Amino acid sequence: MATDRARGVFYEGDGAFVLRDSPPVPPGPGEVRLDVAFCGICGTDLHIAHGGMDHRVRVPQVIGHEMSGTIAALGPGVEGLRVGDPVVVRPLDTRGETPADRGLSHISRNLRFLGIDTPGAFQSSWTVPASTVHRLPGGFDLRLPPLTEPLAVACHDVRRAELVPVEMTVVIGSGPIGLLIAIVARNAGARVLLSEVAPDRLAFARSLGFDAVDPTADDLVAYVDAASSGAGAEVVFEVSGAPAAALTMTQLAALRGRVVVVAIYPEAQPVRLFDLFWKELEIRGARVYEPEDYERAIELLATPGLPFEHLISRVEPLERLPALLDEMTASPTGVKTLVDCRT
Amino acid sequence: MATDRARGVFYEGDGAFVLRDSPPVPPGPGEVRLDVAFCGICGTDLHIAHGGMDHRVRVPQVIGHEMSGTIAALGPGVEGLRVGDPVVVRPLDTRGETPADRGLSHISRNLRFLGIDTPGAFQSSWTVPASTVHRLPGGFDLRLPPLTEPLAVACHDVRRAELVPVEMTVVIGSGPIGLLIAIVARNAGARVLLSEVAPDRLAFARSLGFDAVDPTADDLVAYVDAASSGAGAEVVFEVSGAPAAALTMTQLAALRGRVVVVAIYPEAQPVRLFDLFWKELEIRGARVYEPEDYERAIELLATPGLPFEHLISRVEPLERLPALLDEMTASPTGVKTLVDCRT
Repeated sequence: MATDRARGVFYEGDGAFVLRDSPPVPPGPGEVRLDVAFCGICGTDLHIAHGGMDHRVRVPQVIGHEMSGTIAALGPGVEGLRVGDPVVVRPLDTRGETPADRGLSHISRNLRFLGIDTPGAFQSSWTVPASTVHRLPGGFDLRLPPLTEPLAVACHDVRRAELVPVEMTVVIGSGPIGLLIAIVARNAGARVLLSEVAPDRLAFARSLGFDAVDPTADDLVAYVDAASSGAGAEVVFEVSGAPAAALTMTQLAALRGRVVVVAIYPEAQPVRLFDLFWKELEIRGARVYEPEDYERAIELLATPGLPFEHLISRVEPLERLPALLDEMTASPTGVKTLVDCRT
Repeated sequence: MATDRARGVFYEGDGAFVLRDSPPVPPGPGEVRLDVAFCGICGTDLHIAHGGMDHRVRVPQVIGHEMSGTIAALGPGVEGLRVGDPVVVRPLDTRGETPADRGLSHISRNLRFLGIDTPGAFQSSWTVPASTVHRLPGGFDLRLPPLTEPLAVACHDVRRAELVPVEMTVVIGSGPIGLLIAIVARNAGARVLLSEVAPDRLAFARSLGFDAVDPTADDLVAYVDAASSGAGAEVVFEVSGAPAAALTMTQLAALRGRVVVVAIYPEAQPVRLFDLFWKELEIRGARVYEPEDYERAIELLATPGLPFEHLISRVEPLERLPALLDEMTASPTGVKTLVDCRT
């Protein structure tokens, strides 16, 4: 790589992104410098593009956190990694952890998210803490591993649900995270039903072999009741962020069912606490992932027969990123768009 | 007992209660007839008196479910119990359980609650399924065991919280159930803080040695933050049913804290789902009790040094019940009022 040609797309605030030179940052102690291969566009990136996270992103800043790449240089004291290793990054800088966090690094109060709170991966060269790096097995096409990050979210969510085989599972919302949760849950032996209002997403979910319902056309609660002989769903994932879903999620659940809330609701939201009481439900929050979720996601990506490649809708060059963010805002299509960050 | 003098207080609808003869019901197969000694007045009884459960109570009907008594007669096929045994009743008729209930008898869909859905204990003679009876150890003053029922609620709630020693625990609401949860949690090794708005309840909680805060006078979230070195409460019990508490409960909780909702919210209630997500909280519903909670409650009632006798504010004769329900509605005072049902 000619490092003098290193480039990045910088968020400048007010929805504006600019491609320009982004000189490689030499890795400090405990850090590594990566040559970025591909980086996926996440809903969070769109949220940043809409100005929704201007309180956290210090402009100008490169964003992006769903990446694949190879190690270009090791900082002092880094062990267990070699230049040339194919890797992905778990974009959590947990170095600010304190005892009040009780060991929960991934949700520690001073957590910094790489690509939001610190520079991200929409650039050809990225320097990160070595502790965030997960090495990939050999032979991976680097187009697939940017899915590791959202897939690790799904693995974490399914782990939070303590899902066991043959449990009736409803996933509300069939965007990228909802689909990945459905794939992980089905692979874990669950009977999965997806709920989705967008016709293209419904059709895509069905193309992957999932039973999928439009809750604005069919009575989802009655559908689940019939499908479960009146018992309800042992596990519900709320991924949509829709107020109607926050009301429905407890109605769908069986006695002692687990409802995992993955969606982000900025405002307090009406929830049927009577259902919680009456059926002794558990509503569990799930946020990002822990290292074991990353390892599990890498395993699943390498597992034959799982439909991850179908989730990658297109690959575009880095300089197209500003236009892509506009296009995806105007007309969301496909599941996952990748950007090629190689110089 | 002269059974021809058997009496009961019947709910007649529209808040009206009448004392009249209540002939003993001979126990059928698998049933026992009890001589009732004492029966406590529960918040649910007041709710019935206010007409709030007229959709469930078929009038005229005797209500009441927090009782003590002795076995007067055994129906055919009842084993393991003897006439004269001192007992309490776990007032759950689970005989309508189906496979869709997945073994969760205590919250099974056809559950009937004795004293609400079927006749209750505000009468001198009460016939119940033998499976609902728990035998008391010898030597109990029968004035204390009516606390078994609400104490079993508290034992169940604390078990649902998976509380472990030294965990910071906040109980929102210091009525009878809140106080009992606080006593059980403290006995289990928790550091307990009570929140309560009523001055007499605050004073009573403090008289039992509890730290107690009025959240309308002090900033409860800041108080818990300071008391926990910034970590928050590992366990929160929401017992008040106040909309403000449904908003505060998640703010009080530590990372991965458990929030147990004991209160009944008839309507969907705004909840800060962002806290749930951000801190990976669990909100758990808790309803009534299982047999092991009753056994644990009986053990605790027999444990020296626990302040249960202080919770019994007064004992009144059965014929006073209609007036007591009016008086307690007009001016709630004391913790637990017992009615003496002996003829």
